[in-house]
Amino acid sequence: MSGLSAVSSVSSVSSELPVLLVLNAGSSSLKFRIYALDGERLEDGLSGQVDGIGAYARLRVTGPDGVRLEDRELQGADAAPDARAALALLVRWLGTRLAGRRIAAIGHRVVHGGPHHAEPVRVDEALLAQLDTLVPLAPLHQPHNLAPIRALATAWPGVPQVACFDTAFHRTQPVEAETFALPLTYRDAGVRRYGFHGLSYDSIARRLPAVSPAAAAGRTIVAHLGAGVSMCALQGGRSVATTMGFTALDGCIMGTRCGSLDPGVVLWLARECGLAIDAIERLLYRESGLLGLSGISADMRVLLASDAPTARLAIDCFTYRIAREAGSLVSALGGLDALVFTAGIGEHSAPIRAEICARLAWLGIELDPEANAAGGPRLTRPGSPTSAWRIPTDEERRIAELTVETLGASRA
Amino acid sequence: MSGLSAVSSVSSVSSELPVLLVLNAGSSSLKFRIYALDGERLEDGLSGQVDGIGAYARLRVTGPDGVRLEDRELQGADAAPDARAALALLVRWLGTRLAGRRIAAIGHRVVHGGPHHAEPVRVDEALLAQLDTLVPLAPLHQPHNLAPIRALATAWPGVPQVACFDTAFHRTQPVEAETFALPLTYRDAGVRRYGFHGLSYDSIARRLPAVSPAAAAGRTIVAHLGAGVSMCALQGGRSVATTMGFTALDGCIMGTRCGSLDPGVVLWLARECGLAIDAIERLLYRESGLLGLSGISADMRVLLASDAPTARLAIDCFTYRIAREAGSLVSALGGLDALVFTAGIGEHSAPIRAEICARLAWLGIELDPEANAAGGPRLTRPGSPTSAWRIPTDEERRIAELTVETLGASRA
Repeated sequence: MSGLSAVSSVSSVSSELPVLLVLNAGSSSLKFRIYALDGERLEDGLSGQVDGIGAYARLRVTGPDGVRLEDRELQGADAAPDARAALALLVRWLGTRLAGRRIAAIGHRVVHGGPHHAEPVRVDEALLAQLDTLVPLAPLHQPHNLAPIRALATAWPGVPQVACFDTAFHRTQPVEAETFALPLTYRDAGVRRYGFHGLSYDSIARRLPAVSPAAAAGRTIVAHLGAGVSMCALQGGRSVATTMGFTALDGCIMGTRCGSLDPGVVLWLARECGLAIDAIERLLYRESGLLGLSGISADMRVLLASDAPTARLAIDCFTYRIAREAGSLVSALGGLDALVFTAGIGEHSAPIRAEICARLAWLGIELDPEANAAGGPRLTRPGSPTSAWRIPTDEERRIAELTVETLGASRA
Repeated sequence: MSGLSAVSSVSSVSSELPVLLVLNAGSSSLKFRIYALDGERLEDGLSGQVDGIGAYARLRVTGPDGVRLEDRELQGADAAPDARAALALLVRWLGTRLAGRRIAAIGHRVVHGGPHHAEPVRVDEALLAQLDTLVPLAPLHQPHNLAPIRALATAWPGVPQVACFDTAFHRTQPVEAETFALPLTYRDAGVRRYGFHGLSYDSIARRLPAVSPAAAAGRTIVAHLGAGVSMCALQGGRSVATTMGFTALDGCIMGTRCGSLDPGVVLWLARECGLAIDAIERLLYRESGLLGLSGISADMRVLLASDAPTARLAIDCFTYRIAREAGSLVSALGGLDALVFTAGIGEHSAPIRAEICARLAWLGIELDPEANAAGGPRLTRPGSPTSAWRIPTDEERRIAELTVETLGASRA
């Protein structure tokens, strides 16, 4: 049986250690990260991505020290007109780059694990067939996540692969949080509040005990503010509620996604505007959010630098909605001990953190402006009744850890 | 010009006072209430309704003392196969009942006033034409609200009519509360969080100073729990946020309506289930909520009396969602001083009030079980950091008051 045991005899010299590959495949980008595997310890290796797939695809590769090693347009024999070509290219590139090293395992981010997967799972044909049935629940993501798993099973047969689900972390939610008020037949058909960004929340939950034991043991909201935005209510490190629901559209306002929307608006768009479902989907996923409100950009940095009134409106709506959703999560928790900011905006935008904390001052969050400007990790004054933190998320490392744990468990 | 002045010379003997009629016309019911108008003071008169329009229509009439005066099926010459026939019947009935008395004014509940009407308005042709343009925003209600206004203008020409909007009370919301994160062209086209039940909230806001000056001046959530369910955040008696949005679907779980729903679910219903927009609308408005979850009933009393697990699930989801939405509103208010229960379930179901207060204990709500069982008005223990109250709503009286005020103002 191939597995971690198959590679444990490889030399312990770091450059000759077996590698663990993490893949995060989306519709227009293919991200990867390589770790050297020293027993069960993970050493950071190269990371990179092919992005702009279908248009002007580029390959970017960065060393573990953050130094950019490659950045080139993919043309000619290296063209990546679609996800399949991009993956084939990456496999060739990795084959060259990792020549002579054993690939111990591959961990994949898979957006949807459905109602039952609360843990990562080692991939086999039966699992892939089951994950295929979830495509209708995440048509924009799931097929892109599954294609590389199949391609790599062919390219590198025998290398164990593990599927790590963005939904798994939220399977600890109570039934009231997960259930829409539709006839129960729809719940049975899979219509539930799954929640997403679970690998990010899992990453933060793992780091919390070292950063703040009180936050780790208590009632904590994690605000994952990136291109996708969601928040999660953690009770002792376990998800009890989250803002995203059945899809990654719900909850907070995002770069181009609408967040919470009265379902009657969708009916109105179809009936009164005569929009087809595909057009509504494009509107809600690609043309709304910060971009739709501002008419300027989906990028918070651009909006913060703009003096256009619509840029200010977009930012105000963004922070207001986060405050509203945070209040809702606090109610699920029965109070709040700590607030954690993570992901692109959460980690890098001190002004947005400050605006959100101001809207949440009623929860006893007393921001320390200097600590916030410096990036924390603690953002609140000593003695603040509720603490706030900045903690970088690392979904790839969490996938790598889960992959090691899952294969270790399947070996045991 | 006809108006209140035209009837002010009528005898002050109560039975000969002019009357003010309030009409609340829905798709399958037509409710009315008659007040005797003593100057600007309103005396309760008859109330009643034609319901079951289209099926087994009945007329029920109750005296001001609560005694049932009539309750009969409408058949033969009195049949009410549609809203128009029901209205014609009611006009005939009122004509007989009020023989010889002057009808000073008619106040109407109109569900939608659009983005600009923050006050009731005296009806004229221009207003009706403008309100017609709002039909696409409330196709299930607005036409039923407008038809009686036109019919009565013909039946009783010269009697002034006033349109009182369910949306008007929420026009004090800040722009961030009202704006969906869609391209701004949609906001300009009318896609906003209007909020509803405004006449009920206005009624409560008027009564609050006498019940609790602190709640009236402070941060108060009113939970309107009826067949329709919504909540409103009042800051000094003015709406700053509410749970219903563009339509009466959003927010809390209702008897047959879904409340908050990931917009992606609507896309899924259309694409994966192949449901037409009309079928989705029927599902979300008529087959969801408590009825959909329980599979038993939309009536909270039936569910509370049931020992079916799905009845319990429906109740748990109902109170959980209210607690989540309450947390969201508290965040809009920056804290909470008081919680008010009103409308059918809110006024009459002590167990539901108790379950909601238990979920909101984190806000400092310390329920007094005996006071709750007795129906308050104060439901919390003396010294409870946040108070809770039971206050009956009276939308019809508020419509009557607004009608008097509006005509008084237009006369001045």
